[in-house]
Amino acid sequence: MTDAVLAKTYDRTVFYVSDGTGITAETFGHSLLTQFGSARLREQRLPFIDSIDKAQEAVRRINRQAQLDRQRPIVFSTLVDAPINDIVRQATCRFFDLFASFVEPLEQELGVKSSHTIGQSHTASNIEAYGRRIAAINYALSHDDGQTDVDLEQADVILVGVSRSGKTPTSLYLAMQHGIKAANYPLIPEDFERQRLPESLYRHRKKLFGLSISPDRLAEVRQERRPGSRYASIDNCLYEVAAAESMMRREGIEWLSSTTKSIEEIATTVLQKIEARGG
Amino acid sequence: MTDAVLAKTYDRTVFYVSDGTGITAETFGHSLLTQFGSARLREQRLPFIDSIDKAQEAVRRINRQAQLDRQRPIVFSTLVDAPINDIVRQATCRFFDLFASFVEPLEQELGVKSSHTIGQSHTASNIEAYGRRIAAINYALSHDDGQTDVDLEQADVILVGVSRSGKTPTSLYLAMQHGIKAANYPLIPEDFERQRLPESLYRHRKKLFGLSISPDRLAEVRQERRPGSRYASIDNCLYEVAAAESMMRREGIEWLSSTTKSIEEIATTVLQKIEARGG
Repeated sequence: MTDAVLAKTYDRTVFYVSDGTGITAETFGHSLLTQFGSARLREQRLPFIDSIDKAQEAVRRINRQAQLDRQRPIVFSTLVDAPINDIVRQATCRFFDLFASFVEPLEQELGVKSSHTIGQSHTASNIEAYGRRIAAINYALSHDDGQTDVDLEQADVILVGVSRSGKTPTSLYLAMQHGIKAANYPLIPEDFERQRLPESLYRHRKKLFGLSISPDRLAEVRQERRPGSRYASIDNCLYEVAAAESMMRREGIEWLSSTTKSIEEIATTVLQKIEARGG
Repeated sequence: MTDAVLAKTYDRTVFYVSDGTGITAETFGHSLLTQFGSARLREQRLPFIDSIDKAQEAVRRINRQAQLDRQRPIVFSTLVDAPINDIVRQATCRFFDLFASFVEPLEQELGVKSSHTIGQSHTASNIEAYGRRIAAINYALSHDDGQTDVDLEQADVILVGVSRSGKTPTSLYLAMQHGIKAANYPLIPEDFERQRLPESLYRHRKKLFGLSISPDRLAEVRQERRPGSRYASIDNCLYEVAAAESMMRREGIEWLSSTTKSIEEIATTVLQKIEARGG
């Protein structure tokens, strides 16, 4: 028992309880908790709690954890069904009802009564937006890494940059989360020698956006992929990054450095650029 | 002017203001607002508001919109820097400070002071988790659609199902959001004729999870891809779905129907299964 307690890598458990996926509760709660850096917390989603039975099962789960941790868990709830929410609230926990304090002021402000229906934000109910996301994912996959010039005019944005600068994850994220059609093209040594972008991009110049990266970080990332290769050497990375940046400067392509940025941060910046271009 | 007002497809503007990407504010606010279905709202993120200058620019933006809409915008803020937050609060708007009501009770509960530092949830600062996500995306891409059996033992889950049942978007989402390595294999007519799964999957049977879909919906999705083909015909879709479900039943593979589910809902269920298996 003592061993088990000593071995634990966390002090408290946090539950995100929802009648849907729990993504909203988790995103919000996790973001709040990053402001309490020194607390050792274990986070756990309890999704699809949409019946009295499941609410009771959630309570048992939370109570078991309370015993195990010898501390009451923290519960973030986005449950909108009052009877279900009231059951979970009875668990041995510190309960945070995330929506409660906002619903009434919003009703007043909007002059509309809240439907108190189960969250629709991550259901497939918005068929059109959903179809757009799936189409954008297929587009990103078929237009990854300069695979094809077909349908390039359909792109909302075309990302360019050296290999491993973050183009693929960014394209997929833009598609998945925002239904944005993003193609991406690598800038390769042949382009630098010719001092020309891949030819098919000139027609779509206004859609180009560049990703760059620090040569050190690039070498690190490439080493993982092809250890000891010329491709991953710091000399080659220094050359490629300098050549790519000078090409982007010459061609008037806006770019950002992805070195210390998350996929979400890069994608958010790209979205801002697309909007600013009126795209 | 009258024309412009009549042509507007929304009545109110909602701003999500953040010192980071604004994803937390948007996820939360959007989820809240789905409970006010009849309100016609236009949503707009204002990300990276991390200086006094940018706060003042945000205020100008909100005030311009207030004039245009002839209604004050609704602002959801996750700004944690008090001076910046106080500036934005002064805009012509109904201001919701999303974190304010939770920080103090959490300080008490955790016995830790909030750092009031800028949200870290969507930065690349957690290098290890970030590297895991990127590796998982590369894994999902190289193990999409049964491309290879190499490194299949590294998979956290292997999705199976007929073509267009939702395997690829689900695999990519699991990788991107959760760093889960998901491979996926199509179940094709040849498999049904042989009455065997693709051979390489038998060794990894415990990792299999199935996606099914209603034949009607499948035919719809396939029609978009290959209009008028045998592949997309309702007869063929009826056959493939029945054959795939009977194979999954025979092989003891758990599955869900993706027909009315979003990528997030499918992924959340798959995650629950992985956890339940102790993976």
